Amino acid sequence: MNKIVLAVDLGGTNLRMAAVSDDGAILSHARMPTPRDGGPSALIDALEALAAECRAGLAESQKIAAIGIGAPANVGPQHGILKNLPNLPQLEGMDLKGGLTERFQIPVTLENDATAAAIGENWLGASRNVKDSIMVTLGTGVGGGVILNNEPIRGIDGTAGKIGHICVEPDGVPCKCGSHGCIEQYASATALVRMAKEAGLDVANSFDVYKLAQSGDAAALSVFEKMGRYLGITLAGLVNLLNPEMIIIGGGAAASWDAFIDHVRSELHARAFDEPANRAQIVRSELPDNAGILGAAKSALMIDNL
Amino acid sequence: MNKIVLAVDLGGTNLRMAAVSDDGAILSHARMPTPRDGGPSALIDALEALAAECRAGLAESQKIAAIGIGAPANVGPQHGILKNLPNLPQLEGMDLKGGLTERFQIPVTLENDATAAAIGENWLGASRNVKDSIMVTLGTGVGGGVILNNEPIRGIDGTAGKIGHICVEPDGVPCKCGSHGCIEQYASATALVRMAKEAGLDVANSFDVYKLAQSGDAAALSVFEKMGRYLGITLAGLVNLLNPEMIIIGGGAAASWDAFIDHVRSELHARAFDEPANRAQIVRSELPDNAGILGAAKSALMIDNL
Repeated sequence: MNKIVLAVDLGGTNLRMAAVSDDGAILSHARMPTPRDGGPSALIDALEALAAECRAGLAESQKIAAIGIGAPANVGPQHGILKNLPNLPQLEGMDLKGGLTERFQIPVTLENDATAAAIGENWLGASRNVKDSIMVTLGTGVGGGVILNNEPIRGIDGTAGKIGHICVEPDGVPCKCGSHGCIEQYASATALVRMAKEAGLDVANSFDVYKLAQSGDAAALSVFEKMGRYLGITLAGLVNLLNPEMIIIGGGAAASWDAFIDHVRSELHARAFDEPANRAQIVRSELPDNAGILGAAKSALMIDNL
Repeated sequence: MNKIVLAVDLGGTNLRMAAVSDDGAILSHARMPTPRDGGPSALIDALEALAAECRAGLAESQKIAAIGIGAPANVGPQHGILKNLPNLPQLEGMDLKGGLTERFQIPVTLENDATAAAIGENWLGASRNVKDSIMVTLGTGVGGGVILNNEPIRGIDGTAGKIGHICVEPDGVPCKCGSHGCIEQYASATALVRMAKEAGLDVANSFDVYKLAQSGDAAALSVFEKMGRYLGITLAGLVNLLNPEMIIIGGGAAASWDAFIDHVRSELHARAFDEPANRAQIVRSELPDNAGILGAAKSALMIDNL
């Protein structure tokens, strides 16, 4: 019989859960807004309610073996503590792994959300046939996950993968991380909107910028040119450093793919060495909605002797 | 009895060889200028002469089990072909592994020289007690080697580790790699001399710049401030990306350590996240002359069933 785990995508806005079998099938799912009040205990209660909903979609014989969580936080492989959650400050320092293990009495894994997305793509998505890949998510911020030899790189403190805070412009736009000129300030959905407004455009979100670019608006086109150039600089550095087989671009702003990807590719090839630049396939996420939840599931399924 | 290998440091100027035992002892060594003429066959002949010299320093009973080479080239773990050697163009495309295996009839390994230096430090030097480390060599260029979980990261084509060609200034100084503003253009020994000359100083090498800085020369001090700031930007990106335990700085320009390291550290801490920045020890190479040769030896000693 297949093993089944509960996978959690803990987002700043939504809390999603799915029951996932070890062949990657999503058997049932449930969601609610992420609790803003009540701190850690409200989150545990919410996860218990979602678990009951997910279990209701399963047969009696289908037991849950473990829980896997992806969270927008620094989390080490051996740690279960949420650290550095700018969008969920009420959970800072929470022992989520310990709390859930106590409540559910089954093993729990915790991954950074971008790392989880990279694991999900490596399991069932764009990078399923390659060993070395890098996932870049262009959302509110720019996230990253690195997979080498089919293993996620977490770093000794679980903070690895912060591609969004690689500098591309030493005296550039201030970043909330404290640095200046991070790629997040030029290639996130948030940055697209900021750069469009700076160019005098009336936009509410990155898709508005994309629609203007599609209609041929020169200012919108130049926003994507700038965004693509800076993203290409970052990817060139990653290609020179890691010589990966694939770079996967996901997140909301990846919907503007055809407005920026040619700029990314031309900048990458202008800057990186030919051999690794020609090797690295630059592709879109194949699991845009479920990469994180499937990666969280895979992490739980990888627990020894599950 | 200890296993013994011959380790080779193939440099642009000198060709060095040592007989190294599996406890890291250098039992004998020999060197000569790297042959400039005669191409691949001259190199094989030179290595045979050095091997005879190294063997003369060993007892009759001490047999050579393998040969490990570090070369300033792109070399994949499964490949033995020298590719992309700007300083040794006469060897471009040479099957060094095949040629040596045929001549010596023992197994041969081939590593990029900066990767070999990182392996050497991880075996016997600064990073011997950590699992995740990054080596940065400040020489004619800027080289790099990444070790994660005690394994060197070579990349699928053997081109990984090109830290010197991470961009720190998008429209900066042109680099021979074809890009602009690579860290190599600000932090190599070559760059220190160029920046010092731009500042009107009369210097022949990076040590001259260092001596001027030590004497309090304002222009020399500002060269090191600029160099340290850019190197700090690069290291901040690496710290955010990989969350390593240690970054080791070697190469000839590391001799100017106390002129630049405070600038590196302050820029790193201003830009990287606190947790990984506080984790990453920034240290000097402990094997400045032998890191590469010992790393090449270690690679050969790691051959299965040697």
